[in-house]
Amino acid sequence: MGLGVVGGQVARVLIDKAEVLAEQVGCPLVLRKVVVQDLSKKRLPEVASLLTTDASEVLDKPEIDIVVEAIGGEVPAIDYLTRALVGGKHVVTSNKEVIAKHGVELLTLAQQHGVGLHYEAAVGGGIPLISPFQHDLLANKISGIYAIINGTTNFILTRMARDGVDFSSALNRAQELGYAEPNPRDDVEGIDAAYKLAILASLAFRSQVRPEDIYCEGISRLSSRDFQYAQELGFAIKLLAIAKQSDESIEVRVHPVFIPEDSFLAKVDGVYNAVQVEGDLVGKVLFFGEGAGALPTSSAVIADIVAAAKDVILGVGSRVKWGTQPGKSVRPMSEIKTRYYLRLNVADRPGVLAQIAKVLGDNQISISSVIQKLADSVAQTAEIVIMTHPAQEAAMQQALGELTHLTTVNEISNFIRVEA
Amino acid sequence: MGLGVVGGQVARVLIDKAEVLAEQVGCPLVLRKVVVQDLSKKRLPEVASLLTTDASEVLDKPEIDIVVEAIGGEVPAIDYLTRALVGGKHVVTSNKEVIAKHGVELLTLAQQHGVGLHYEAAVGGGIPLISPFQHDLLANKISGIYAIINGTTNFILTRMARDGVDFSSALNRAQELGYAEPNPRDDVEGIDAAYKLAILASLAFRSQVRPEDIYCEGISRLSSRDFQYAQELGFAIKLLAIAKQSDESIEVRVHPVFIPEDSFLAKVDGVYNAVQVEGDLVGKVLFFGEGAGALPTSSAVIADIVAAAKDVILGVGSRVKWGTQPGKSVRPMSEIKTRYYLRLNVADRPGVLAQIAKVLGDNQISISSVIQKLADSVAQTAEIVIMTHPAQEAAMQQALGELTHLTTVNEISNFIRVEA
Repeated sequence: MGLGVVGGQVARVLIDKAEVLAEQVGCPLVLRKVVVQDLSKKRLPEVASLLTTDASEVLDKPEIDIVVEAIGGEVPAIDYLTRALVGGKHVVTSNKEVIAKHGVELLTLAQQHGVGLHYEAAVGGGIPLISPFQHDLLANKISGIYAIINGTTNFILTRMARDGVDFSSALNRAQELGYAEPNPRDDVEGIDAAYKLAILASLAFRSQVRPEDIYCEGISRLSSRDFQYAQELGFAIKLLAIAKQSDESIEVRVHPVFIPEDSFLAKVDGVYNAVQVEGDLVGKVLFFGEGAGALPTSSAVIADIVAAAKDVILGVGSRVKWGTQPGKSVRPMSEIKTRYYLRLNVADRPGVLAQIAKVLGDNQISISSVIQKLADSVAQTAEIVIMTHPAQEAAMQQALGELTHLTTVNEISNFIRVEA
Repeated sequence: MGLGVVGGQVARVLIDKAEVLAEQVGCPLVLRKVVVQDLSKKRLPEVASLLTTDASEVLDKPEIDIVVEAIGGEVPAIDYLTRALVGGKHVVTSNKEVIAKHGVELLTLAQQHGVGLHYEAAVGGGIPLISPFQHDLLANKISGIYAIINGTTNFILTRMARDGVDFSSALNRAQELGYAEPNPRDDVEGIDAAYKLAILASLAFRSQVRPEDIYCEGISRLSSRDFQYAQELGFAIKLLAIAKQSDESIEVRVHPVFIPEDSFLAKVDGVYNAVQVEGDLVGKVLFFGEGAGALPTSSAVIADIVAAAKDVILGVGSRVKWGTQPGKSVRPMSEIKTRYYLRLNVADRPGVLAQIAKVLGDNQISISSVIQKLADSVAQTAEIVIMTHPAQEAAMQQALGELTHLTTVNEISNFIRVEA
């Protein structure tokens, strides 16, 4: 269902690699029907005779065993997937939004109807991520996930870091190259990353993490100044999707972070994705690759189709147990503890730093280092950059509020959390 | 079978995580018997009542569904695994040597008897590697594998690079820390890496690559001088296991290489492992983590046990088809083409470089850069380091032979292949 960038490539592979796939599965994979919105569009000639605009041509036909959904978006995909599962069909989808919002309901439906719901392609393109959590790492108690899982923002941040350009010109370039959509909001504001984090955290913590549980902050507030200071201080700036688990609660958030420049994630550039996982047995493992694009995504979709086909042949349903235990509570953002980078535009006068330090100290925030530079000699303003020791988000928010009331502070230019 | 470092940890996890594992599998995993060599050794108290020295207590008992082999080495493990499979038991093993040498026979046996042979723990400790090739990446034609899969040698190389020490002192340190065995031959000479590469290449290329097909060269010839020049030239030195596939043949080799210092693999330090895979759909993907140790290895063994247990419950055998197509031929090392780093001790006289350049030129080897340094002013010797453009191994070996006959060349101190 859907013959766009991903669906078209999946059809292409099913046709071109039919022989090797048949050998893997033990019988041929036959493409029966292709549901599209518009019959008049130019398509792969090999599937011309299979096109239909009528979803029931797929969903209501008993001879169809596996439904592959590559439409994207919440509606009508959610209805199609529901009907397919209820109809006893195995489902393969690359739809992160539907899985992030409705994954638990769909997995429950799949279990009730003895079929599988496969969604490896929903996160990280062709990088194996869902499968490792479902199979390879399942003996582990996962304590943390640190992920660069949005290629668009990582491309923009890489350009800002390397070329010293500002956000809007980096975004324009990404749009020119087709890495960012005309309306880039979902990527730029971290929404896409939050969908993916919801999926990974739900799996890793055997819990139900919904997108709305995730604190989400995009990259549009970052300026080239922040990158200059980051470099000066030995950090890179990345949009990280972070999930942590303690005995009591889980922590899920997407926002720009300072990370040490010699860390692996700092070196993940351009449209690449990487996911670092920490487990009690396995220690630190990292998965890296292209997180989007027709070819890598088709790699994951086809792997899921083969897995589903093997289940069809063996007559078994899903091999993955979906835990039903009540999820842990999500820790409110105000209780998170991190270090902070803080950039302020201040009056260039004696005693200003003392005032600022007092506000921070009064809020139990201790300073690890300070850089002060002349910003504008005519206006007599200076720029102060402060790195703090770990502090609670609530205290930092309180301090930021107080700082804006100091007459010597012209502007809080930015503050960015630090992950060590 | 086997209650050493890995076996003991696996037993520990089966006991400590019994509840969560039962939930994943759908029924409890019961540890029935533990085969050990020596009953008098101190063991986990929880398994004291399960110990036996008699392998048939496991292999001949119909109530045992899954046999976990953590003995290591070729004999008697191969006999035990054969008997287990023929007896219709699912097998989980962490034994790289047995799988590298007898994997195809054992997988064929498993298929004949409708059971699974699981060996995720044989390569890369807890890093998912076998499973990605068997499932996630199976739609891909794999063109290359570049792997750091021996933690001992990577620890030694990391120390040599960072601390400027020579091989023997780095090896001593690794032995003190328990990262290298008292007899380090298998690790240091690349034999362990070759076993693992045989397993990965066989899977990735759906072929039968045997350890003896693999060109294998260890790290003991490396000196601190080589690391100095590598750094000067912008490279790191790593022991890489390399497998490439063309339409005609495959290429499999383990040896030290120069790799660009800004590549991901160059940054894999200490006892970490990393495997970079290139596929036609997925592009470049990389897997990183701790490649050995009791905890990470137990993570993989337990995942395999859970997979086997699900198959037992569902009443299905192996889900993995073992291709029976004839393997591609392995390209002889003499036909390999790479760039080379060459370090020579020569007489410090005019015209020496011209002589050397002529020998290389006569063998169709072209030079990309040269560094010449005074080695010993009293003995009037100099050190010449040459980086070549890509050349064929046979031509390089011929040239090396001719260089040793030049009276002005005192010694070919080292030559190391370069992977870009």
